[in-house]
Amino acid sequence: MSRVNPAPYDVHRLRELAGEIIVNVRELSAAGWTPATSSNFSRRLDQAHAAITVSGRDKGQLTEDDIMVVDFDGRAVGSTHQPSAEALLHTQLYRRFDEIGCVLHTHSRTQTVASRLFAGEGRVHLAGYELLKALAGNTTHEAAIDLPVLPNTQDMPALAARVESLLDAQCVWGYLIDGHGLYTWGRDMAQARRHLEAFEFLLGCELELRKLR
Amino acid sequence: MSRVNPAPYDVHRLRELAGEIIVNVRELSAAGWTPATSSNFSRRLDQAHAAITVSGRDKGQLTEDDIMVVDFDGRAVGSTHQPSAEALLHTQLYRRFDEIGCVLHTHSRTQTVASRLFAGEGRVHLAGYELLKALAGNTTHEAAIDLPVLPNTQDMPALAARVESLLDAQCVWGYLIDGHGLYTWGRDMAQARRHLEAFEFLLGCELELRKLR
Amino acid sequence: MSRVNPAPYDVHRLRELAGEIIVNVRELSAAGWTPATSSNFSRRLDQAHAAITVSGRDKGQLTEDDIMVVDFDGRAVGSTHQPSAEALLHTQLYRRFDEIGCVLHTHSRTQTVASRLFAGEGRVHLAGYELLKALAGNTTHEAAIDLPVLPNTQDMPALAARVESLLDAQCVWGYLIDGHGLYTWGRDMAQARRHLEAFEFLLGCELELRKLR
Amino acid sequence: MSRVNPAPYDVHRLRELAGEIIVNVRELSAAGWTPATSSNFSRRLDQAHAAITVSGRDKGQLTEDDIMVVDFDGRAVGSTHQPSAEALLHTQLYRRFDEIGCVLHTHSRTQTVASRLFAGEGRVHLAGYELLKALAGNTTHEAAIDLPVLPNTQDMPALAARVESLLDAQCVWGYLIDGHGLYTWGRDMAQARRHLEAFEFLLGCELELRKLR
Repeated sequence: MSRVNPAPYDVHRLRELAGEIIVNVRELSAAGWTPATSSNFSRRLDQAHAAITVSGRDKGQLTEDDIMVVDFDGRAVGSTHQPSAEALLHTQLYRRFDEIGCVLHTHSRTQTVASRLFAGEGRVHLAGYELLKALAGNTTHEAAIDLPVLPNTQDMPALAARVESLLDAQCVWGYLIDGHGLYTWGRDMAQARRHLEAFEFLLGCELELRKLR
Repeated sequence: MSRVNPAPYDVHRLRELAGEIIVNVRELSAAGWTPATSSNFSRRLDQAHAAITVSGRDKGQLTEDDIMVVDFDGRAVGSTHQPSAEALLHTQLYRRFDEIGCVLHTHSRTQTVASRLFAGEGRVHLAGYELLKALAGNTTHEAAIDLPVLPNTQDMPALAARVESLLDAQCVWGYLIDGHGLYTWGRDMAQARRHLEAFEFLLGCELELRKLR
Repeated sequence: MSRVNPAPYDVHRLRELAGEIIVNVRELSAAGWTPATSSNFSRRLDQAHAAITVSGRDKGQLTEDDIMVVDFDGRAVGSTHQPSAEALLHTQLYRRFDEIGCVLHTHSRTQTVASRLFAGEGRVHLAGYELLKALAGNTTHEAAIDLPVLPNTQDMPALAARVESLLDAQCVWGYLIDGHGLYTWGRDMAQARRHLEAFEFLLGCELELRKLR
Repeated sequence: MSRVNPAPYDVHRLRELAGEIIVNVRELSAAGWTPATSSNFSRRLDQAHAAITVSGRDKGQLTEDDIMVVDFDGRAVGSTHQPSAEALLHTQLYRRFDEIGCVLHTHSRTQTVASRLFAGEGRVHLAGYELLKALAGNTTHEAAIDLPVLPNTQDMPALAARVESLLDAQCVWGYLIDGHGLYTWGRDMAQARRHLEAFEFLLGCELELRKLR
């Protein structure tokens, strides 16, 4: 990957985005989707920087000090905080798609259970739900969606490379990592949250139906 | 269908109803029954108009600007907002039954899972529950109720025609659409919410019992 | 049953108890245990009267006007409200046991599902739980408890007679009615709520274990 | 066990810790993890004392009067309150490990159900979860953890002796007691809560997967 030089960023924009992240992540935390300080969240700051949660913080109690800036290689900019190794999974999306402004990585029980259950198949096939229309670009419930499931690893560059292959091969709105959780994204916070809620709902329905059929 | 001419409506009454919709829908949203901007809600305004939520808005954050007026063909009145195609499923009830004052369409996981599970049978048979008394007109738990399940489609006039046949054939307090959610209604908001809570509870019991038996 | 003459009651005590009922029932309602205006709740007022919720009110929005006084035959005293037919199931306990000061009847999904699942056996056998110690008089988890399940009926005097037989035969802390919900009680509100929480928890564990074994 | 003489303790530190316990336990109670006045919670006060919740109090309504001081034999210090017999399970940890500053004992449905389901095996084997990294000292999801399950008993010294054997044999972050609940701990409240949330999440995933596979 080529190195983007760190550029000065707009500090007013950073504060705005930090505030937005704090408010939204507290809501996701209250829903139980960020257990035990897991999960991370980011917003595009400009063409070379993203604002992202500092690793290991309690997501139900975020303050401005828990938000840091990284470049698109996932390296800290103007901060002594160590960004999460997973920052790379956020920034690869900002680097690749100009239209992505927000990346959400959560860790609900439904997401984790689904990731383990469908890891063997490498995907969750979602069909027959009206709520598929909540995924940007879908206008009918008749579409079927594959949500990919990637093997878990602590080797982030390897994982990022797998995600790149995925993005080369198909249009995706998110992916699961086995035993881990969900990555999803959108143009802005509202759209990314809509995608997150849609995937959480659809995965929850799939698990319930599997118990019932 | 014959066209009812748009008539001026009482703007004070509209504000009152909008306030009532906002308060109640926020509660339904907090319960998780309106995921990913889904669901819609309406109140009869008069003999020719209804107040209804604008399509695609976050139901947990409704404001007055998210409520619009439609005539009983589901067409916008005095608004540049595009009403949801599903508005027709609300207004057909107001047109047909003078005593209906409120229509609620929600999208809980229980409702969606039940709709898929029972789509083949075309109905959910509910019997043996004290809570059947919560459905208006029922005074005993000995009654048995059929909650119809209709196939999903994006063709709203076709879906509305199916609902008309349903209403011709039997007394119903609500219906499910496959992969989608529940429509229920009542004389006013309180009664419609009582019906909604009763169906959510009864469907939840049925799914649990199916897992346990 | 002999008729106890209505006696004047202490209006200050009534207001105190009404306030206590309102605060506590709102919490039970927020937990989802009183769906669709179901459930009822009472407190002993004196040796001949009880304060009880008026039938059909939304339990999440109780005010003083939703609490009425009944005698121990379940008849309204000094009120034009019609008490619930189920008032008799409350007052028979106050009449029989001087030490009972509070009766709670709720309608959670877990209670309703358990009542239907175990109706055939006529009881839920609860053993091996530390939380059995939460039932007054139990000091060890080694005790086993039978929670009776009675058939549902709209004939309250018949149901009350069945409850009398039950109370003659064994020491009970509560009972289920099939398809309906739980009755439990205690010396005061705090003890009755402890019993309610214990039964809700124990029934929830039993249902989960049945799915898992 | 040798007797540590009661020493005067820092009353300012006690008030600080009591405040911290109250705030945190109310949150755990709101999550439903302390049903029917069950569960108990403590913080190390110094090398000979701990602050611990008084037995039998409603954990959702704790005040300073519900926190008492015990020595490391679990005996009340400067208080007429009777400490829970289970205090010994807290203090044995403070006595043995200088680095433990907080012990949490909760009673969620998931914990109780898991304890009963896995009591025969004597342990819950947890593997393949990213969230294993939330347990202090783990830096990879590749580790596998055994959460021990001990038989329940009202004989606390016997139970404490079993726990000592457990701590002699292996590195553990917590244990379950059959039919009862979870004990977990950490350097401070934040770490102990992280461990608690991690175990609750992991046990919840295991139960769900067992239903689904």
